[in-house]
Amino acid sequence: MKIIQIETHDVRFPTSRELDGSDAMNPDPDYSAAYVILHADNGLAGHGFTFTIGRGNEICRAAIDALAPFVLDRPVDDLGEFARRLTHDSQIRWLGPEKGVVHLAAAALINAAWDLAAKAAGKPVWQLLTDLSPQQVVDLVDWRYLSDALTPAEAVDLLEAARPGRAERIAQLTEHGYPAYTTSPGWLGYSDEKLVRLAGEAVSAGYQLIKLKVGDNLEDDLRRMRLARQAVGDDIRIAVDANQRWDVGQAVRWMTALAPFNPWWIEEPTSPDDVLGHAAIRRQLQPAGIRVATGEHVQNRIIFKQLLQADAVDVVQIDACRVAGVSENVAILLLAAKFGRPVCPHAGGVGLCELVQHLAAFDFVSVSGSMEDRSIEYVDHLHEHFVDPVVIRAGAYQLPTAPGFSAALRPETLQRFAYPDGPVWAAA
Amino acid sequence: MKIIQIETHDVRFPTSRELDGSDAMNPDPDYSAAYVILHADNGLAGHGFTFTIGRGNEICRAAIDALAPFVLDRPVDDLGEFARRLTHDSQIRWLGPEKGVVHLAAAALINAAWDLAAKAAGKPVWQLLTDLSPQQVVDLVDWRYLSDALTPAEAVDLLEAARPGRAERIAQLTEHGYPAYTTSPGWLGYSDEKLVRLAGEAVSAGYQLIKLKVGDNLEDDLRRMRLARQAVGDDIRIAVDANQRWDVGQAVRWMTALAPFNPWWIEEPTSPDDVLGHAAIRRQLQPAGIRVATGEHVQNRIIFKQLLQADAVDVVQIDACRVAGVSENVAILLLAAKFGRPVCPHAGGVGLCELVQHLAAFDFVSVSGSMEDRSIEYVDHLHEHFVDPVVIRAGAYQLPTAPGFSAALRPETLQRFAYPDGPVWAAA
Repeated sequence: MKIIQIETHDVRFPTSRELDGSDAMNPDPDYSAAYVILHADNGLAGHGFTFTIGRGNEICRAAIDALAPFVLDRPVDDLGEFARRLTHDSQIRWLGPEKGVVHLAAAALINAAWDLAAKAAGKPVWQLLTDLSPQQVVDLVDWRYLSDALTPAEAVDLLEAARPGRAERIAQLTEHGYPAYTTSPGWLGYSDEKLVRLAGEAVSAGYQLIKLKVGDNLEDDLRRMRLARQAVGDDIRIAVDANQRWDVGQAVRWMTALAPFNPWWIEEPTSPDDVLGHAAIRRQLQPAGIRVATGEHVQNRIIFKQLLQADAVDVVQIDACRVAGVSENVAILLLAAKFGRPVCPHAGGVGLCELVQHLAAFDFVSVSGSMEDRSIEYVDHLHEHFVDPVVIRAGAYQLPTAPGFSAALRPETLQRFAYPDGPVWAAA
Repeated sequence: MKIIQIETHDVRFPTSRELDGSDAMNPDPDYSAAYVILHADNGLAGHGFTFTIGRGNEICRAAIDALAPFVLDRPVDDLGEFARRLTHDSQIRWLGPEKGVVHLAAAALINAAWDLAAKAAGKPVWQLLTDLSPQQVVDLVDWRYLSDALTPAEAVDLLEAARPGRAERIAQLTEHGYPAYTTSPGWLGYSDEKLVRLAGEAVSAGYQLIKLKVGDNLEDDLRRMRLARQAVGDDIRIAVDANQRWDVGQAVRWMTALAPFNPWWIEEPTSPDDVLGHAAIRRQLQPAGIRVATGEHVQNRIIFKQLLQADAVDVVQIDACRVAGVSENVAILLLAAKFGRPVCPHAGGVGLCELVQHLAAFDFVSVSGSMEDRSIEYVDHLHEHFVDPVVIRAGAYQLPTAPGFSAALRPETLQRFAYPDGPVWAAA
């Protein structure tokens, strides 16, 4: 199977008009996708994208175009090699390395290749992954810079040890799905009334964990946290998310103030680059029983490795499009398993829920073998634009069955929300 | 003073044809600049650029264009605010944050604003900086994420403490310049004969430190290191540079093998993202007396902060265009001074020598007050394309005197080397 044509799109949704997705660092996001379709010589098409929040989406599209020569007229049979080909070109690597725009672009292309390969195999991506042997999984990974924490041989052992019970775990996923938590009540731009109403609805819908955005104003956060706790009761977990707003000392002080409301974790308390900062925050918040989570902006496996080595996080939040797609996320799942930390994928945005459900299912079936303290973020925005949207039932993601990565946007969406010339934007 | 027009260029030099600049990770760079000219309402023009090694230079130019609305029709009087305006837009920040392509683009614009401001003041940039009060210097910095290592008040104290002797240090720079070291002999693509000849010439020209690229093949490195040591004798320092080629264990083994030739430092032994990896390498190489250096690919002040907190580096290598220009480099110089580590700027590429000489002079005059174990990298490529090129005499950078940042390429260079339509490329 060979790529014969590459098609890119700049797709943007005007979400800032409703303050959906607003938080302490991102007051007015327009959820967007730098979107790519890989057309293969057998008539199949693989869809992939990276998620942005508006301005600069065109830069990511330009970066996908810059990587196109490494894909066009080339095979997609070895997906590990495919990913390394996109991240190892020395000239383009200079612009990262393995971070920022060029890495987001690589993610879009790598995920598109997985969509294509899964369609060719007639399987959803989670199953394409769970059907691989331990050695085949290990061969997907770019092992450079990892050997001080995890070697390929250790990873094979870890995957071998997880093999017993796979059929039962697949059966469990098929019957009950994978637990979700919801951020929908907690956007910073929402009124108290909307927060309370959505929090109550979340509990009724079966969620065991909800998440609130914090970090803009402490008085507001104390009030919103109290309202949310009253709305959901003591048995439902409430995570909070500061979206990188604080310095180390400020994070500790702010979260100590919120501690009486029993937050389940503090997410992104400071810069995603600050491994030692997260470690210091975690150490100081441990007496209050507050856990530390991060990952949606963690640039690559090397920072994740250090977050684990430094005991800096309780929860590993993979993102489907921030790192180099499926291949690098496999590395991060292996690292998390080695260090015994639960993975709770970041989702929301455009299509992140659709993608990460496959990775979480693979983690449960083939890597960690556990669902304890694990759940996938769920936000109920924009799913109607996808051909194969996620299905949530009783607070759980239902296992996808269609071949591919659930990544395809509807053709009419690609046309209507095209930026800047689609009808939604041309009218504005 | 207000910006009324922004002009961008994609300039590339076909350096791969001669293997200038070849190393273990970058076998065939085409040294390039994503170049910007800010035209002000008073008729002055500020020039800035970011350095890349070829493919993807157009992505950086697209990112500069995406940032243009934050500059056009806006003042450039408060350079601290100018820089924060470019790195804090929430939508574009999502593409980093503060790293990779969007940060490289911010660097080009921020450095162009400094060139403009210095021209308006009739001073070279180093003097614009050394004429600021401690509080004015501190106001240039984006302090977010730094307070666990350095506070603004501590930085003011540090700058106050460095004030005595400033006039003498300026006189010293004026008379003797700032020490340089040279990488010109050591490119990996050069023959042994060329290496030995250029190493000898470097010593004759007055250099006290030369640098060799290593990391591709240990046998070759042992031979080249022996030849270089024979050529320069025992009193000249030889640094080596692996350009991120190794994992932690491999770095320790390789450098232990090279230890008999007394390398002065090992530069970029592993990923620039790997703070803990650098710390482990440094700890293990200390018994052999080998120091660890990094910085040219360190994405921002947050990683530099951690490299210092974790005792991971002996030498801090700032880069003029990788982080957010002058403003973020001021933060890094302050951090290095706080932790007592020498700064040896990365240079070479396109115009990096021209820019960093100003920052090193500012460090000596106003921040560290020291030249001990400090020198600026020098590579003798492409200076003929600059309007105000560096002047090296007796192995030292001579203090620039022309107003501005020495950043302007000659107009005929912008035309000849324009990619892909300039005559140099159209002919290829």
